[in-house]
Amino acid sequence: MTTLRILGIDPGLRITGFGIIDKTGQKLAYVASGCVKSVETDPLPQRLKSLIDGIGEVIATWQPSEAAIEKVFVNVNPQSTLRLGEARGAAIAALVAAHLPVAEYTALQIKQAVVGHGKAAKEQVGHMVMRLLQLPGEPSKDAADALACAICHAHGGQGLGNITTRGLRVRKGRLV
Amino acid sequence: MTTLRILGIDPGLRITGFGIIDKTGQKLAYVASGCVKSVETDPLPQRLKSLIDGIGEVIATWQPSEAAIEKVFVNVNPQSTLRLGEARGAAIAALVAAHLPVAEYTALQIKQAVVGHGKAAKEQVGHMVMRLLQLPGEPSKDAADALACAICHAHGGQGLGNITTRGLRVRKGRLV
Repeated sequence: MTTLRILGIDPGLRITGFGIIDKTGQKLAYVASGCVKSVETDPLPQRLKSLIDGIGEVIATWQPSEAAIEKVFVNVNPQSTLRLGEARGAAIAALVAAHLPVAEYTALQIKQAVVGHGKAAKEQVGHMVMRLLQLPGEPSKDAADALACAICHAHGGQGLGNITTRGLRVRKGRLV
Repeated sequence: MTTLRILGIDPGLRITGFGIIDKTGQKLAYVASGCVKSVETDPLPQRLKSLIDGIGEVIATWQPSEAAIEKVFVNVNPQSTLRLGEARGAAIAALVAAHLPVAEYTALQIKQAVVGHGKAAKEQVGHMVMRLLQLPGEPSKDAADALACAICHAHGGQGLGNITTRGLRVRKGRLV
């Protein structure tokens, strides 16, 4: 049975989260997660370069075959929205430079995939990611969101359905 | 006397303008300009890849040693602002991937550098770019804005001062 290695990205200029999972059949397994940071006092091009280099390192280290990135919310602050767009554009640039196919998912799709419904609180995402991937503890928020995005992609962007993670069965966001 | 080759970029998701000039001492000379387009019906990652590949081709062809990019306005439409940010982030990614130092200039700085004051109408920018670089006609808007950005960088991001372009002297936006 072939294994698909998926890289999920939660983009941000200050912190970009990443999460990598393996999908073998319907089973998901945690591989790695973390975040790439940029120095706030650096000029923007240098900050974007830090993110691009960091994502490039992640790709070189774990060799994913597909990527998924969260479609971001537009912020009430236009300047923040612009900055978020720049970080997201640079992250996608790093992914396509590595010839990875890139899928995009909304926060709603990701919550549906991980928690089973789109109205889940943010905390629930981290908790469900931990349980779905059988992690010893909750990952940091940025890593959890990136892992959730990878899980969403593993589900084909669909709702939770019946996914088995290392023997656990999940139905509508609850382990059964 | 060494020649500095500057690549100016006017970022946009649909059309990204580019303009290349040579600066030798205080003399500026036109090298090339044009635009890179993305297909509106393509998914965003593919659109960003088109821009990145296009900018990469421009760099490979004309081998600039420095780059300058316009700091964009935030749009009234948050979704447009996000898209513009994504295009700008991808463009900067293409520049830093080619190891080019990237400078950023506001529209105000660019107008001051090219027209001599920040309140210039957009049409004046194209006209002054044509005159400063002794072009046979006005370049397209996107190419003109990119060339103006490169000219601004050639001036060190400062006001117009006394720049000589192939023997023409310019003072406060007027050829003298």
